[in-house]
Amino acid sequence: MKISCLKSELIRGINIVMKAVPVRTTLSIQECILIDASTPRITLTANDMELGIETVIDGTVEKRGIIALDAKLFSDIIRKLPDEMVVIESDDLMNTTIRCEKAKFQIPGLEGDDFSRVPTFEQEKGVVLSQLSLRDLIRQTLFSVSAADPNKIMTGEYFEINDDMLRVISLDGHRVSIRRVQLKDHYSPVSAIVPGKTLSEISKILTGSLEDEVNICFSDNLIMFSFDETIVVSRLIDGRYFNVDQMLTTDYETRITVNRRELVDCIDRSTLMVREDDRKPIIMNIGDEEMELKITSYIGSMDDLISIDKEGRDIKIGFNPKYLLDALRAIDDEEVSMYFMNSKSPCFIRDEKDSYIYLVLPVNFVE
Amino acid sequence: MKISCLKSELIRGINIVMKAVPVRTTLSIQECILIDASTPRITLTANDMELGIETVIDGTVEKRGIIALDAKLFSDIIRKLPDEMVVIESDDLMNTTIRCEKAKFQIPGLEGDDFSRVPTFEQEKGVVLSQLSLRDLIRQTLFSVSAADPNKIMTGEYFEINDDMLRVISLDGHRVSIRRVQLKDHYSPVSAIVPGKTLSEISKILTGSLEDEVNICFSDNLIMFSFDETIVVSRLIDGRYFNVDQMLTTDYETRITVNRRELVDCIDRSTLMVREDDRKPIIMNIGDEEMELKITSYIGSMDDLISIDKEGRDIKIGFNPKYLLDALRAIDDEEVSMYFMNSKSPCFIRDEKDSYIYLVLPVNFVE
Repeated sequence: MKISCLKSELIRGINIVMKAVPVRTTLSIQECILIDASTPRITLTANDMELGIETVIDGTVEKRGIIALDAKLFSDIIRKLPDEMVVIESDDLMNTTIRCEKAKFQIPGLEGDDFSRVPTFEQEKGVVLSQLSLRDLIRQTLFSVSAADPNKIMTGEYFEINDDMLRVISLDGHRVSIRRVQLKDHYSPVSAIVPGKTLSEISKILTGSLEDEVNICFSDNLIMFSFDETIVVSRLIDGRYFNVDQMLTTDYETRITVNRRELVDCIDRSTLMVREDDRKPIIMNIGDEEMELKITSYIGSMDDLISIDKEGRDIKIGFNPKYLLDALRAIDDEEVSMYFMNSKSPCFIRDEKDSYIYLVLPVNFVE
Repeated sequence: MKISCLKSELIRGINIVMKAVPVRTTLSIQECILIDASTPRITLTANDMELGIETVIDGTVEKRGIIALDAKLFSDIIRKLPDEMVVIESDDLMNTTIRCEKAKFQIPGLEGDDFSRVPTFEQEKGVVLSQLSLRDLIRQTLFSVSAADPNKIMTGEYFEINDDMLRVISLDGHRVSIRRVQLKDHYSPVSAIVPGKTLSEISKILTGSLEDEVNICFSDNLIMFSFDETIVVSRLIDGRYFNVDQMLTTDYETRITVNRRELVDCIDRSTLMVREDDRKPIIMNIGDEEMELKITSYIGSMDDLISIDKEGRDIKIGFNPKYLLDALRAIDDEEVSMYFMNSKSPCFIRDEKDSYIYLVLPVNFVE
């Protein structure tokens, strides 16, 4: 195999596929990036067996072939080369030479045929949305995915397509995050549980542009995202997702509207009084025009006052400050509305259109 | 005690003194920042018993007093406050209230009298140089201080003042770094071994301006740097420094001049072939107009060619690439000259005025 590409183009491709290179594995060939130049197109591929990414890069195939190169070493070498044309050449023994100007690296490669490629499948019609929308959806919900739960379903996000509506849900034992976006087209109903790790990696390689689109297809056990010259395929999590709708209610006894930035800053400050081992709640004491926020721990205490618009009864309720912060930071609105039933029931942070609903469970407190 | 200061001014002072807050200590009061408002001036102080820093901040003393507050907590609280006036008030039981707008923190403090203050001393005439010069001197020599050597002398830098010349020297078992600067004034000879950690911390708080000066005084066992409204005092390392002059020679068999940036990039690339546990040398093969650089390890191999100006004999010599890199990166010149005697003798990187001399020992290699 012999190819030549600009360094910048190689780096662009490497940065995309690196997200699917496993950190450690027993399958050492999967720690490689596969360079496939068996056709006039050059593709780079990485696959950790849960998540696989394939991307096309610009370049010239001088002699067709495929080779697998240690991902970290290959990436490090390309990064340190001058910003010029790079020539990569492998012989029959997989010995690979990387040349750029007068610099020459020689490293061993592995047989490309041994590399497990990304599984692909065909589907008539994929769901289309902008890269910006998908990236926002992930950012606004990913924080409430359980990092490592014995119940695997909780480590994923629920994607649910119904006609022209995409709804994304994540939850852990303490909160639920729901985001809805309207699609331009109409689709048959489909739903799937997508691993949180897949979404985290894909959100790093989406351009986040409103013009660029991403196409999402589902098979029984796979999800495929196609965008630009890249394909990302991930296994789905098997199982039946929680019935979230039965947790939702629009009833409330108290509703407040508050400046989001001001509330975030205040709760953020309060976290200084909380140590990992001693989770003290922040207590919100909601009165007519002001809300008092107070936290007391063995470190010290903080209190603060924030102006609010209130409708309904006064209420005093405690929360883990981190859970409130995560939800409030995922919202872009300047003002947010919070709905309370009583001090034992979840608080809902939602907008009028239900484009977002954040449910946070309260915690008990003693005074 | 009751004082009021702008948040920004508190942050400025905290950032300076934090450099002397110990990470862990058995003397828990030394993990505090001392706020001294016993006069109309407000000073902040931290002291890890090796290094002490005291700085004056702008503010109003409403009630005189002193208090010691946990450095990390105090710093974190101030950072999270709104960018407004902050009022700090301590009662007789050292309970301290920090107020800013409607936010109020209450934390315990410690008796200021128990805090070990920064030792100070008087000297008639300190050595004066610009903050820029001192910061550069430290940056250009600190890398070859031994991080933790049983021989404590090697963990410090030698400061030597002779008439109107300041010379700073550092060394470990493999290399020597020497920098000289001319002073504006003339001084009696004085020398001292300054801990590397002190220099590392002070270089972070020097403004690096050519206009702002720093005044350096020496006592038998202390060095004091005074600049702006800040005093930094450090213990000196006891002992007799190495006789470096006897290691220096101006004889050479080969001299080359090379573009520094090009050489740095090439050596930097070669380090990809080196793992911590398998220190392979980079071999420089110096010919008439070109120098070949080559490194081979179990990972792979790299070679490269660089244009040089040469005077004297051809030579082949091996080095630890990191040691060459450190020295070459500490130099600002576009072109550097390197002097070689033979493949067993140190290489000297120096300029004509001897404003810098970097000596690097070669390593053996087999081909």
